[in-house]
Amino acid sequence: MLEKTTRINYLLDFYQELLTPKQRNYMEMYYLEDYSLGEISELFQVSRQAVYDNIKRTETMLESYESKLHLYKKFEKRAEVIEQMEKTVSDSAILKMIDQLKELD
Amino acid sequence: MLEKTTRINYLLDFYQELLTPKQRNYMEMYYLEDYSLGEISELFQVSRQAVYDNIKRTETMLESYESKLHLYKKFEKRAEVIEQMEKTVSDSAILKMIDQLKELD
Repeated sequence: MLEKTTRINYLLDFYQELLTPKQRNYMEMYYLEDYSLGEISELFQVSRQAVYDNIKRTETMLESYESKLHLYKKFEKRAEVIEQMEKTVSDSAILKMIDQLKELD
Repeated sequence: MLEKTTRINYLLDFYQELLTPKQRNYMEMYYLEDYSLGEISELFQVSRQAVYDNIKRTETMLESYESKLHLYKKFEKRAEVIEQMEKTVSDSAILKMIDQLKELD
């Protein structure tokens, strides 16, 4: 479960702009702020099942975006190379550029 | 027009997976293979206006994805830093990593 939560959190980072406000709300509360389905359903005055279905559909959407755009996968690969560079480089001007690259991700 | 074509080509690179097959077909023929609206409409047996409307709607979609995900903008910024690094670095091991980063974009 923890591994799945980490993945969903990353996918949210990359694709949340493509979700509706309601989808974002539910996902943020459930995955980032650790609300339960019951708590979310009470707050929004909808059934627990409706919240659950919305979250499941959103997860499928996020995975579908990732299967098409691979932003998370590419990010991981880039982060790996950038980390390697950082360990190898001693030139402070280059280290500064490496920092710039890290901030762009 | 040339500048716009370049931009649309880049946006297609980043977001074409999010388009329908028909949208991709029209866009590729019009922007990559330089077919005219008339030629595309003849090949697909639809009106010239229908092709035009589809292409315009797709352009709007591409710009909307870019305004949300900024993949092209981030790519340009990364490419700039990577180019700078390449000019500064002389260590061949680091140059190899820079090449890896370029391939990941």
